[in-house]
Amino acid sequence: MKRLLITLLWIGMFTSNAQNPEVETQIKELYTTALLEGQSYEWLRHLSNQIGGRLSGSLNAERAVEWGKEELDALGLDRVYLQPVMVPKWIRGTFEYANIETSPGNTVNVPVCALGGSVATPLGGIKAEVVEVKNFEELQALGSEKVKGKIVFYNRPMQADLINTFAAYSGCVSQRVSGAKEAAQLGAVGVIVRSMNLRLDDYPHTGTMSYGDLPLNKRIPAAAISTNGAELLSSMLALNPKLTFYLKQNCKNLPDVLSYNVIGEIKGTTHPEEFMVVGGHLDSWDLGDGAHDDGAGVVQSMEVLRLFKKTGYRPKRTLRVVLFMNEENGQRGAIKYAAEAEKNKENHVFALESDAGGFSPRGFSIDTTPEKLKAIQAWEPYFRPYLIHMFIKGGSGADVDDLKTDSNILAGLRPDSQRYFDYHHTAIDTFDAINKRELELGAATMATLVYLVDYFTL
Amino acid sequence: MKRLLITLLWIGMFTSNAQNPEVETQIKELYTTALLEGQSYEWLRHLSNQIGGRLSGSLNAERAVEWGKEELDALGLDRVYLQPVMVPKWIRGTFEYANIETSPGNTVNVPVCALGGSVATPLGGIKAEVVEVKNFEELQALGSEKVKGKIVFYNRPMQADLINTFAAYSGCVSQRVSGAKEAAQLGAVGVIVRSMNLRLDDYPHTGTMSYGDLPLNKRIPAAAISTNGAELLSSMLALNPKLTFYLKQNCKNLPDVLSYNVIGEIKGTTHPEEFMVVGGHLDSWDLGDGAHDDGAGVVQSMEVLRLFKKTGYRPKRTLRVVLFMNEENGQRGAIKYAAEAEKNKENHVFALESDAGGFSPRGFSIDTTPEKLKAIQAWEPYFRPYLIHMFIKGGSGADVDDLKTDSNILAGLRPDSQRYFDYHHTAIDTFDAINKRELELGAATMATLVYLVDYFTL
Repeated sequence: MKRLLITLLWIGMFTSNAQNPEVETQIKELYTTALLEGQSYEWLRHLSNQIGGRLSGSLNAERAVEWGKEELDALGLDRVYLQPVMVPKWIRGTFEYANIETSPGNTVNVPVCALGGSVATPLGGIKAEVVEVKNFEELQALGSEKVKGKIVFYNRPMQADLINTFAAYSGCVSQRVSGAKEAAQLGAVGVIVRSMNLRLDDYPHTGTMSYGDLPLNKRIPAAAISTNGAELLSSMLALNPKLTFYLKQNCKNLPDVLSYNVIGEIKGTTHPEEFMVVGGHLDSWDLGDGAHDDGAGVVQSMEVLRLFKKTGYRPKRTLRVVLFMNEENGQRGAIKYAAEAEKNKENHVFALESDAGGFSPRGFSIDTTPEKLKAIQAWEPYFRPYLIHMFIKGGSGADVDDLKTDSNILAGLRPDSQRYFDYHHTAIDTFDAINKRELELGAATMATLVYLVDYFTL
Repeated sequence: MKRLLITLLWIGMFTSNAQNPEVETQIKELYTTALLEGQSYEWLRHLSNQIGGRLSGSLNAERAVEWGKEELDALGLDRVYLQPVMVPKWIRGTFEYANIETSPGNTVNVPVCALGGSVATPLGGIKAEVVEVKNFEELQALGSEKVKGKIVFYNRPMQADLINTFAAYSGCVSQRVSGAKEAAQLGAVGVIVRSMNLRLDDYPHTGTMSYGDLPLNKRIPAAAISTNGAELLSSMLALNPKLTFYLKQNCKNLPDVLSYNVIGEIKGTTHPEEFMVVGGHLDSWDLGDGAHDDGAGVVQSMEVLRLFKKTGYRPKRTLRVVLFMNEENGQRGAIKYAAEAEKNKENHVFALESDAGGFSPRGFSIDTTPEKLKAIQAWEPYFRPYLIHMFIKGGSGADVDDLKTDSNILAGLRPDSQRYFDYHHTAIDTFDAINKRELELGAATMATLVYLVDYFTL
């Protein structure tokens, strides 16, 4: 009886399907060109090593805008322009430091970094007892009596048995984003958040946080602690609940400054009024070079247009690359782009973002109508020689999801996710963590989806 | 008309299929246990960092045998034993060095390493002009007149537009394996082979080579040069075809020595006379730690049995883990194991090898009857939640393919291949290049296939 199962119809995978040979040839040329004459790796080398981390409002972000425009200009596109947008400016400041004190004078340093948007500590730092919680329910259960005057330590680890590490991230990120606000309302004096990382190491992971509508004078400093630091703090707390934690940081929120989305386009031959967007975000956090987050997405998106030019494919719809500003701490670039698109009544039929790292591509998550999702899934045989197999219903990307309509297609490139949170928002998100072929395969995979959407006018 | 294509039937992928819930539950437990309570990463840390490179016949190989047996003993298997096998002993010696001399006294050093099995140069080294070829046809076309007294430089790069990097490797490896023999027959005094690497870097890649039946006094030294070194040599040759190359190495072939395959087994409950094998090879090259090649395969194979014990699944057939000795330069362990299996009339129904690196698993290549291949492919829905999608007809692994019969199943784990040749046979094939989750997912994926073959008695 058990053998009956093996008679389940096996259809599709790794058997040859009748395909359109013209389409197969063009796709092969996209991949071959990306792998043999690709530009994405060299672009990323420059963006990572010669510019580096480029937090919104920073000098490096300005340099990245200039670089992006220059490189797009050099591609001979039909139009390249900057779209002004006001962005928040938060600076890390000159120091961030923490230690655990188990008895007077007995301290051990732990690696921390300020969360983006956090206020500074007083110049002399803060020192307080610590309450460890795994979630907001535990925090509420403690109540203000037990939280007041303390530092709240959020120590919920990412769930390691989830295969998709982004799902594990989603399950944890609330403590980083809203942890300070929740703790401040109960009278805490600061928060320490376990880094969003599946491995145990010594790199604290920054990332955005928000005080919501908390008045300025109620805002408390928030920092991330490395996973090893979190494990240490937790075990020391178990031994000595009265230990104190010392945190000092002088980060600062400054007034908004002018920045830009960088946009380039190839005008469509037959439907120039219909827009297809590929993009990534040009800003990054400041600790590393932002090579994976999201230098990779930036150069892959630029490469899509370059591959079209290089292989001589002229899209029927207008194809835009958008290097979005300020995804990390405000998404102002995305908001601005969507608002301008609406104002100008631009019909965005398709938008694809790469913002999940430059790792080996596995496929796409797709946000569209059930009919269009099925149509895209039917293209799987075209992708099979390139080992692209994921065409799942799911979110697209923070920079493009404002473009959603009832009928258009939004998508996100889905690379292998296992290594991403080793690097995400840390000092080691640097160019050496990028594999050239994986980056190039991602660009070719994006170009292929854009091409198919355009060719079949989906 | 083009839109017709989108009506192509889309079946199977990412839709839910009716499955056997008992099987689904067991598979989930295998993955969860591997990710939350896995042992493979800690095993590999020890094998890589505490033992290190373990070339056949070396002290480290002996230590690896002892370690393997001890660890298997600790698992409480039904039987653990060593299978004696005589293995070749080649040693790298104390120096290997090369330079390019463009004019007397003007030299530039280039990174080289002796190929495994190569003879030494004379103590003072060899110095000769260089002829560069891409393949044996070019070499033959040159003829002995142009080759005699020269060093032959094989400079065929791996084909970068192939998606599967192992296919690119296959297209190049003949120059490493047989290059010296071919060149010696035309009177060359030595060979330099471009490293089997898709990226440009400074690490020479060793690997096995053979003189075939060439008499001892005709054998010439063979070394690999890093890809950057190969590019440099080629461009300098274009400028100055009369340049000389200097090579010095004192590697040595010694008499065979005794070593062992390490074997552990769980006796089958209902078909103990039917054997299923999981394995990797315990030996490695000597330059790095052999973490990817094939420490990963060793610990993943051990983990399969541990996961069965830990989750309480008792296989119907006898399940063996075999840590094969001497895959790299002789495959004596594989030959011995197959010979003993035949002698003892052991019915090997299934054998699975992991020897393609500890990267994110994508699936399997499978060598069996068309019917059994289809049956395995029908299990794809069970693997889908774990993003395992490749079930292709193909070779298994060098250590298990001698077990082939008309009806059994041989398989090889297929991890993502993009990064593998960055590390293969080099000094940087070390533990830090391993991602814990990727390694663990590979082990769970192997365990799942073994479980399914056993459960459905395929």
